[in-house]
Amino acid sequence: MPIPAPVLYPPFQVVRLNHIVLSVSDLSRSRAFWADTLGLQVTGEADDRLYLRAMEERGHHCVVLERGEEPRARVLGFKVYAEEDLDRARHFFRARGLPAEFVEAPHQGRTLRCKDPLGVPLEFYFAMEKLPSIHQRYALYRGVKPLRIDHFNCFSDDVQASVDFYNALGFRTTEYTECEQTGRLWAAWMHRKGGVHDMAFTHGVGPRLHHVAFWVPTPLNIIDLLDLMATTGYVANIERGPGRHGISNAFFLYVRDPDGHRIELYCSDYLTADPDHEPIRWDLRDPQRQTLWGAPAPRSWFEEGTPFPDTPPRQPVYEASPIVAA
Amino acid sequence: MPIPAPVLYPPFQVVRLNHIVLSVSDLSRSRAFWADTLGLQVTGEADDRLYLRAMEERGHHCVVLERGEEPRARVLGFKVYAEEDLDRARHFFRARGLPAEFVEAPHQGRTLRCKDPLGVPLEFYFAMEKLPSIHQRYALYRGVKPLRIDHFNCFSDDVQASVDFYNALGFRTTEYTECEQTGRLWAAWMHRKGGVHDMAFTHGVGPRLHHVAFWVPTPLNIIDLLDLMATTGYVANIERGPGRHGISNAFFLYVRDPDGHRIELYCSDYLTADPDHEPIRWDLRDPQRQTLWGAPAPRSWFEEGTPFPDTPPRQPVYEASPIVAA
Amino acid sequence: MPIPAPVLYPPFQVVRLNHIVLSVSDLSRSRAFWADTLGLQVTGEADDRLYLRAMEERGHHCVVLERGEEPRARVLGFKVYAEEDLDRARHFFRARGLPAEFVEAPHQGRTLRCKDPLGVPLEFYFAMEKLPSIHQRYALYRGVKPLRIDHFNCFSDDVQASVDFYNALGFRTTEYTECEQTGRLWAAWMHRKGGVHDMAFTHGVGPRLHHVAFWVPTPLNIIDLLDLMATTGYVANIERGPGRHGISNAFFLYVRDPDGHRIELYCSDYLTADPDHEPIRWDLRDPQRQTLWGAPAPRSWFEEGTPFPDTPPRQPVYEASPIVAA
Amino acid sequence: MPIPAPVLYPPFQVVRLNHIVLSVSDLSRSRAFWADTLGLQVTGEADDRLYLRAMEERGHHCVVLERGEEPRARVLGFKVYAEEDLDRARHFFRARGLPAEFVEAPHQGRTLRCKDPLGVPLEFYFAMEKLPSIHQRYALYRGVKPLRIDHFNCFSDDVQASVDFYNALGFRTTEYTECEQTGRLWAAWMHRKGGVHDMAFTHGVGPRLHHVAFWVPTPLNIIDLLDLMATTGYVANIERGPGRHGISNAFFLYVRDPDGHRIELYCSDYLTADPDHEPIRWDLRDPQRQTLWGAPAPRSWFEEGTPFPDTPPRQPVYEASPIVAA
Repeated sequence: MPIPAPVLYPPFQVVRLNHIVLSVSDLSRSRAFWADTLGLQVTGEADDRLYLRAMEERGHHCVVLERGEEPRARVLGFKVYAEEDLDRARHFFRARGLPAEFVEAPHQGRTLRCKDPLGVPLEFYFAMEKLPSIHQRYALYRGVKPLRIDHFNCFSDDVQASVDFYNALGFRTTEYTECEQTGRLWAAWMHRKGGVHDMAFTHGVGPRLHHVAFWVPTPLNIIDLLDLMATTGYVANIERGPGRHGISNAFFLYVRDPDGHRIELYCSDYLTADPDHEPIRWDLRDPQRQTLWGAPAPRSWFEEGTPFPDTPPRQPVYEASPIVAA
Repeated sequence: MPIPAPVLYPPFQVVRLNHIVLSVSDLSRSRAFWADTLGLQVTGEADDRLYLRAMEERGHHCVVLERGEEPRARVLGFKVYAEEDLDRARHFFRARGLPAEFVEAPHQGRTLRCKDPLGVPLEFYFAMEKLPSIHQRYALYRGVKPLRIDHFNCFSDDVQASVDFYNALGFRTTEYTECEQTGRLWAAWMHRKGGVHDMAFTHGVGPRLHHVAFWVPTPLNIIDLLDLMATTGYVANIERGPGRHGISNAFFLYVRDPDGHRIELYCSDYLTADPDHEPIRWDLRDPQRQTLWGAPAPRSWFEEGTPFPDTPPRQPVYEASPIVAA
Repeated sequence: MPIPAPVLYPPFQVVRLNHIVLSVSDLSRSRAFWADTLGLQVTGEADDRLYLRAMEERGHHCVVLERGEEPRARVLGFKVYAEEDLDRARHFFRARGLPAEFVEAPHQGRTLRCKDPLGVPLEFYFAMEKLPSIHQRYALYRGVKPLRIDHFNCFSDDVQASVDFYNALGFRTTEYTECEQTGRLWAAWMHRKGGVHDMAFTHGVGPRLHHVAFWVPTPLNIIDLLDLMATTGYVANIERGPGRHGISNAFFLYVRDPDGHRIELYCSDYLTADPDHEPIRWDLRDPQRQTLWGAPAPRSWFEEGTPFPDTPPRQPVYEASPIVAA
Repeated sequence: MPIPAPVLYPPFQVVRLNHIVLSVSDLSRSRAFWADTLGLQVTGEADDRLYLRAMEERGHHCVVLERGEEPRARVLGFKVYAEEDLDRARHFFRARGLPAEFVEAPHQGRTLRCKDPLGVPLEFYFAMEKLPSIHQRYALYRGVKPLRIDHFNCFSDDVQASVDFYNALGFRTTEYTECEQTGRLWAAWMHRKGGVHDMAFTHGVGPRLHHVAFWVPTPLNIIDLLDLMATTGYVANIERGPGRHGISNAFFLYVRDPDGHRIELYCSDYLTADPDHEPIRWDLRDPQRQTLWGAPAPRSWFEEGTPFPDTPPRQPVYEASPIVAA
């Protein structure tokens, strides 16, 4: 089995993913999409940046949109359990020869900027500016009623290496796809916060961001978003779904923002808090792993993604499978 | 059985209920409730009147709010099948010594204003100004996402007389409550358009309007409205529900507007188009007729209603039952 | 405009569609699908026939499955308003040289079997054996919780001729698709009972049944059916959806039964009771007419259907459009 | 503030609640309720015990029903992070003079039986027999479609003492009610697994179990259960709801099993994984804390509960408030 044994006592404690920084070409166009259509709440706008949060979040932001020339996923942000975990994290990355520097990040306390071995830009923080709760201010709910950021998914040119690294960080694998013929990993879903994933990796030209996902209340909110997007000029931004994933059992929809960043709207996965929760293995030949109901994903979904800064995507280091994914 | 045989070929053809005219004390306060909270769309505002329609309706209005000193239900409006039905209706009412006059009603064609034998003010029209469809303009949906006006419910001081009269007009009874001991009618639900009712009557001090109802997509929209009202200053306007009626099988919520007019949000009753559809009888002692799940209605629900103009409510002409309704 | 003026006073009164008779090769296999999976209730099984009804229906059957060599749609059944409408209907069909014979149909009263001008086998009845209501026997609900039969949809080799004929019968067109270039009808939706349709016609090799549809409570019931079919061996029977139609605004799913008969699960269209309800025109080039959210229908959906007995399907009599439907 | 500072590094690691052992008078009657109506899956039946699990759980049981003379909550079971946590837990309890013995529990590994300072019987285990996943066997879903056990709620005669003890165990308070006049705690919600609670305490005659709760997919599943219970002889077992709690923001329903044990069906609370997640304070005078929509809980809900074995309930040690709860 290509999934390493879980690490019971990790080198530093990651609580969960918290935020993403994306570059976009036109902030007002992005605001129309992310705030007015998806329904995220604007919490700040300054210095060519737009800050957004979801409805149950009390931290200042789960999405930062920065004006930029090219669509890039600049940072994937994670919260650690205690402030000393930041120092432990720095030690951990440095010991492996990986970049790890403290940086200034507005609205956040001490913030450690790192890169994982494949070049994914990460950020760890402990404290973030807190905002008043709007969870029960129902007059503010709009769009798909996004409740919280749920996970990141990345193309990796070496899924096995990605899994090994995040496993060492204490992320636990909940589900994975391998090729029965080659025995190689195709994809894996790994969590910290007790759901199916905070971070997932898919075989492909990488590293690139595949998507960022938001948790929504019920499948009907996703249907509401489809109706809204379809009648407000965003029908071409609907990429895949709605459907139910075999993997994770979640109800999903994939849409693209005006710069092509992929966003998943997601609900109803399951609790994975147990440290002895056993990962579920899927065979790459089983089409129901992707969509339980059988509908295939479009080609764009397998091929397109958002690059990270200063890390040109590479061809995969191993051929995961002779099967053409479809 | 107190329900008369249905009239196969009525004297004139009523298609369905269409609109209500209510007097309110403060139009801007009413607009905040009916438009911004319930989600009806404003189609006109002039001469101390606010016109509203629901999302799938193409006629100019289903609700007219008129500034007035006292809360009154001024008119219950019905659409007829062909223009000649207006003349047939006038003949029918006049032949029974009942008021029936053609009046001017803005945005409507020829309009016949009548009173039923108990004093309920009715209005029949054939043609109304048509507006562009907004059914698929999902960006306009708000509040409970009201799709269409569904029915009126009135207190009657003589439910048997009300049922006999509307039966003669071609309304068909779908369900009714009687007292097993006295054999007297307590309440009846009567339809034209193929649902459980366009018009219902309940034993009580009457005639008064008990409520006007709007059809909504699913029970989740009613839950959304509860969350919204509960957090925008309208918690005291929530009167009863949510629940499922035994009678009609519909999912319901009753709220009160700022002037105390009662509004039902309603979905999921059933098709009653068959002329030989047999009415369902309920015993007054069965509490599940009101709420299938057992929760009783509050006292206000049995006692309070909106008077009609110039018709002082009267005590019931017969005692329907020795049972205290609760 | 290719839609004829509605007939206000039709030659006989059709209330609504009521039932379909389909031939199937293996009744026990069909029972597993129609009853155990879709959730229709078995009301009788005799003489190589299985009778089924939906949850709010009180008539004996809305579906009759008959053992047969080949998949055929043997009868499309409609209820008339009064018994004399049967005689009027016989006169109407005979006057046009069309077949119309009274036949014996188990559990039905007098039953008139006809063919429309294109060869679609119709059946008109007034009275059917009534069964006790199971609408509130919630322990019986299963599968998609089908509430009632909703409509038929047929391929027609001459949609204009089909529309003209059913218009003469008093069916009113609610929506239609035409080709802007040729001005020819591509498809039309026609109703009697106050929804978007009892009967629809689509341009194609015909006549053939395209599908029979059932009304379900909410989109979530359709999601439940997808989950059930996907995990009980029926994933290949899921053909198209879920989605929202532009036309009708309904939420839909298309599945195929074990003999390939197509079934639509359908909810949330709109009220069309008004005789002056204006039909909505769609351009064949607008892909949102089919699926508001943009996903195209698969090729099978345009090409496959169930033949009627003794009426070999024909190529269309006119080319509706130079556009390839997709 | 009566809420103590959270303990960052607790003496042993509790992962989450896992199971409850209840005594019932008639196992077949209980099976009809818990399995056939609520929809839990039977995983074993032996020695006067019935074992049940919810749909996404892979452990052998979340509910054990034992035949017994009197309704009692015999054990509240929790899972620990690693096997050595059992020894740490034993030390922790013994050091405080509290009972803590290893016992044999079928289908579980080493199991530590303890009592908290107020007399609540607890059980800690690390390993439990694992069963094949049924999460995607949708043909097995029934009733309310319970996905997992969510939390316990207990009456406590000294809420402050309960909170102090569980805080020392590493449970973090997410919300609490206090009396503004007296400054005393009325109730508190405390979690381990990242939701609003694994364990809650309410001021009253205690210790007694107030309820055990199960997580369900959406509010519509709760409506389905209401319809089912109301029409299968369980209408009197519906105690409170449906509604939305102000506290936790969850959608809820309370029902009673045939022995009077109270069960909550619950969905849509929020993520609380952050160690610096700040508890929300509610004033006892705010009726929306209980039901956001304003409906009061019935008297039985404040007064009735299930005793624990060998621990006679006591009057509260302090008067939390001069306000009569209602």
